[in-house]
Amino acid sequence: MFKLDPNRTISDLALKLVCNAGTDAIIVGGTDGITFKNTRDLLHRVREYGVLCVQEVSEINAVVPGFDGYLIPTVINTKEARWIHGAHVDALRKYGDLIPWDKVLLLGYTVLNPEAKVARLTQAETACTEEQMVAYARLVEHLFCWPVLYIEYSGRFGDMALVDAAQRVCRKSRIFYGGGITTKEQTVAAAELADTVVVGNLIYTHAERAAKTVKWVKETDRKGDQRVKNR
Amino acid sequence: MFKLDPNRTISDLALKLVCNAGTDAIIVGGTDGITFKNTRDLLHRVREYGVLCVQEVSEINAVVPGFDGYLIPTVINTKEARWIHGAHVDALRKYGDLIPWDKVLLLGYTVLNPEAKVARLTQAETACTEEQMVAYARLVEHLFCWPVLYIEYSGRFGDMALVDAAQRVCRKSRIFYGGGITTKEQTVAAAELADTVVVGNLIYTHAERAAKTVKWVKETDRKGDQRVKNR
Repeated sequence: MFKLDPNRTISDLALKLVCNAGTDAIIVGGTDGITFKNTRDLLHRVREYGVLCVQEVSEINAVVPGFDGYLIPTVINTKEARWIHGAHVDALRKYGDLIPWDKVLLLGYTVLNPEAKVARLTQAETACTEEQMVAYARLVEHLFCWPVLYIEYSGRFGDMALVDAAQRVCRKSRIFYGGGITTKEQTVAAAELADTVVVGNLIYTHAERAAKTVKWVKETDRKGDQRVKNR
Repeated sequence: MFKLDPNRTISDLALKLVCNAGTDAIIVGGTDGITFKNTRDLLHRVREYGVLCVQEVSEINAVVPGFDGYLIPTVINTKEARWIHGAHVDALRKYGDLIPWDKVLLLGYTVLNPEAKVARLTQAETACTEEQMVAYARLVEHLFCWPVLYIEYSGRFGDMALVDAAQRVCRKSRIFYGGGITTKEQTVAAAELADTVVVGNLIYTHAERAAKTVKWVKETDRKGDQRVKNR
């Protein structure tokens, strides 16, 4: 999947390249500067193409009707309940009647790049061993039974040993990996271990190469048994 | 269900009354003074009867093998991540390999009696309106998709309007109610709204009447549609 930030400028050509690349979905979302207007404008531009387009909701006032689905992030590696479910409960109080639940998917994040804005915002505990990641993954897979564990390094390429560790205990929960993918080698390494690979920044610096990541992911056989994870 | 506290003394007669009352299960657990030894001793005494017996885990060092199931509490109305999943991740790091997941059930608690030990321990935000409870219930039912919302007033009889509000939005998640049940009227009121009624303290003060609550619950038709909630 590609992640497009409504708060960043993207050329028509770059947008066309990623929307026509054969990706499973375009995710629209970001950490700051997200508004109803810039989200709606980006959705309208993406709608010129046939690709599935979902919104990742980080700001309740920027939720735009008309997306194919809505991704709701929750942060696992934080001590701040606000980022686990506090903001969610506040939003549910206001808008709970209006939510199309059949279009909603929860993403359980581990935020692992301490330099990233999202890590500072959520006060994420970014130091993580394989043992710790296995514990997070078991929480998601077995105890909370959440559909997705999202291993997020936004801004730099992450530790694939952690993705591997998480995947070893997740038979139902899907593993998303995102962060710092710039080369074919990185794309393949992530695709071998994760169920879904998310490419973001590269779209804004090298759109053509970003488009190629779709092909590289599709060519990659995931390591280990080829579990089909349906949710 | 009955909740028995390993840290409290129960006579053989009282134990016999509640174990033979026809309840769905005996829950063994409490807030403080819970040890491996007092938990194991209580399990052994309950095992003289045919009743299903599960442990509610509050202290990882007191987990006793041999229960029919294990209930894992998580607190929703707290700002302390420790009580949402922090302690759980720590426990998973140590014992994650050993957990019989098919015997584990997660309980999503709202802790609502500010005088209760558990409320002080977890720094629960016990002030709760119907609107707030609906938001908690939607979090459990739709976003987190947890199997149980436990409305807990341990020590005093609670606000049935909150149980009613939660039940109105929960079609899959079961509603447990526990706290302060001492009379037939209270038992019936709780059973009309909740999917499961938990009786605790009454066992220690009026065991015969506690045993009768099972009959009162079974005689009560739950209000509204008779949804069957299977998990």
